Amino acid sequence: MNETDFTLTKGKRIMKIAIDAFGGDNAPDEVVKGAVDAVKEYGVDIVLTGDTKKLDECFERLGLSKDHITFEQADGVIEIEDNPKMILKEKKNCSMGVAMQMVADGRADAMISAGSTAALVMGGTLIVKRIKGVKRPSLTPVMPGLNNMYILLDGGANVDCRPDMLRQFAVMGSVYMNKIMGVDNPKVGLLNVGAEEEKGRELEQETYALLKNSTLNFTGNVEARNAALGEVDVVVTDGFTGNIYLKTVEGMGKFMKASLKKIFFRNLGTKIGAMFTMKGIKEISKQMDYRETGGSPLLGTAKPVLKAHGSSDALAFKNAVRQAKDFVERNVIAEMEKVLSENTEG
Amino acid sequence: MNETDFTLTKGKRIMKIAIDAFGGDNAPDEVVKGAVDAVKEYGVDIVLTGDTKKLDECFERLGLSKDHITFEQADGVIEIEDNPKMILKEKKNCSMGVAMQMVADGRADAMISAGSTAALVMGGTLIVKRIKGVKRPSLTPVMPGLNNMYILLDGGANVDCRPDMLRQFAVMGSVYMNKIMGVDNPKVGLLNVGAEEEKGRELEQETYALLKNSTLNFTGNVEARNAALGEVDVVVTDGFTGNIYLKTVEGMGKFMKASLKKIFFRNLGTKIGAMFTMKGIKEISKQMDYRETGGSPLLGTAKPVLKAHGSSDALAFKNAVRQAKDFVERNVIAEMEKVLSENTEG
Repeated sequence: MNETDFTLTKGKRIMKIAIDAFGGDNAPDEVVKGAVDAVKEYGVDIVLTGDTKKLDECFERLGLSKDHITFEQADGVIEIEDNPKMILKEKKNCSMGVAMQMVADGRADAMISAGSTAALVMGGTLIVKRIKGVKRPSLTPVMPGLNNMYILLDGGANVDCRPDMLRQFAVMGSVYMNKIMGVDNPKVGLLNVGAEEEKGRELEQETYALLKNSTLNFTGNVEARNAALGEVDVVVTDGFTGNIYLKTVEGMGKFMKASLKKIFFRNLGTKIGAMFTMKGIKEISKQMDYRETGGSPLLGTAKPVLKAHGSSDALAFKNAVRQAKDFVERNVIAEMEKVLSENTEG
Repeated sequence: MNETDFTLTKGKRIMKIAIDAFGGDNAPDEVVKGAVDAVKEYGVDIVLTGDTKKLDECFERLGLSKDHITFEQADGVIEIEDNPKMILKEKKNCSMGVAMQMVADGRADAMISAGSTAALVMGGTLIVKRIKGVKRPSLTPVMPGLNNMYILLDGGANVDCRPDMLRQFAVMGSVYMNKIMGVDNPKVGLLNVGAEEEKGRELEQETYALLKNSTLNFTGNVEARNAALGEVDVVVTDGFTGNIYLKTVEGMGKFMKASLKKIFFRNLGTKIGAMFTMKGIKEISKQMDYRETGGSPLLGTAKPVLKAHGSSDALAFKNAVRQAKDFVERNVIAEMEKVLSENTEG
């Protein structure tokens, strides 16, 4: 399996990860801090894309070392409000676009951005390009189950999907879950309104048939209430439904946090109660924290592309680098190509 | 507005609510207890449908009074596994079918069942029948927001929907929220993957245009994370997406409950903490408890049809009766007809 060897050779690090230094709410400071931490911890080279003058100032201001970190000049940032197509033309030299171009040119092995999701999907698809045969790439958030982590495809890259796209999502998700998350024979579930085979829309009914005949460990339909507890490892759905699901989970997380706050700050007794339970509450919060898992891979691109959360801090960026490193080192894309080719017609 | 006067006249109660006595996990005991409580508290007549011999035995065993309660013979129960179409033919004399027929014949003013949702939708549509012009009825769960209650249409009656159906859901939901929940000028939001007008699938884009031109207080798209906090009073979507949303909320409720349990039972300190905060936690649980809100109305039928939760207990049935009573007394259906006629073409 080790076609490429990315391990450290005496003083020379041969894996390079490009990070859009100006994407996200906390750029560039948190990106820079995360990059510096990742270099130390994971032994990779990092190239930061963006206004190199500003980056120089940032390193100086923060008093950080540029060891194993280089800059690549880029002009401006693609904003969330921008038409994502601008990454292909007017804004192709923005910090996200340059990072993508470096990956496309083979000058970097993977890229990370906390910038516009829509632009990342557009650029991932058309600049980094897709794995041969992949119809659409899928945004793939890593989600907290009750006793496990699971992934969701598609988290929102494609609002309209066909059954063969969902089958590809299932394959890519299954490989990712196995190679990166270390789950043997991941359970794949089709998000649906009931457990029975005939449930759902035409999309679910046709996808069910495809997955039943696939080489995957397809466990049938999964209802949203069981998906949320982590019943399966890979939850497959179209990008519209996936995005609604993902944001409902996020919303309910906020809901619970706000509710607990109300309870705890009610009176002295509850404040004392809060003190006793705070450690556990914090652990749950940590478990539900996107910063711990890194970013959401855009699965289906020919090279690893990772979407970091818009409000990522240094820890989130560092973890995204680890995720990108694993992605490259473990030859996830080669494995996806193999399993995709085993699951084409039917 | 008071075309019908349902108030108590000397000893004569003129509103009659039919309850499927054998629908749900806790039938008939909890149905019977709930009915007896509702008679006392709300001054309505109740007719229980099902095996009258069994019902007699049940009242005797529980030692309850049949004051203002009558029985209507029905044969068997329609099961969740049954093809819902059976309610129209083979099982039209089942406990749910008979309750519906009584409403259709004008022998009852509203009906409640905790039985098969699919059969309830089928029977509501074709036995009770629809309000003139209504394309499809919508299951309408009442959901807990952070500081309010909101409703969701469609919670799962129609997996495939067209824009004009969603507009009707919005109208019916808006009237229900106003008349039953007492919300002035309810905020109506279209569940979508982003706030901007052009977001979503063709369904959302076309529905957006219809709602923008409606007489409703349409506040635009609502993302699932804000919907879950209760940002709008009426969340409109197709029945597939609505069902995924609803069950994700339910699943996350379970997730949080299980997480808190894990925290609280960790050690003596956390157990003490739990004692101090238990009251507040219970209040939140109560707020999220379907039993308090009653059932989910099937909006769009010519007479009120209410789906009680499958695991309803006496309290849930009692509250569903209150909901049905309000539904009849406040002329909700006449108001829906009026507002529907104001929002037809566009």
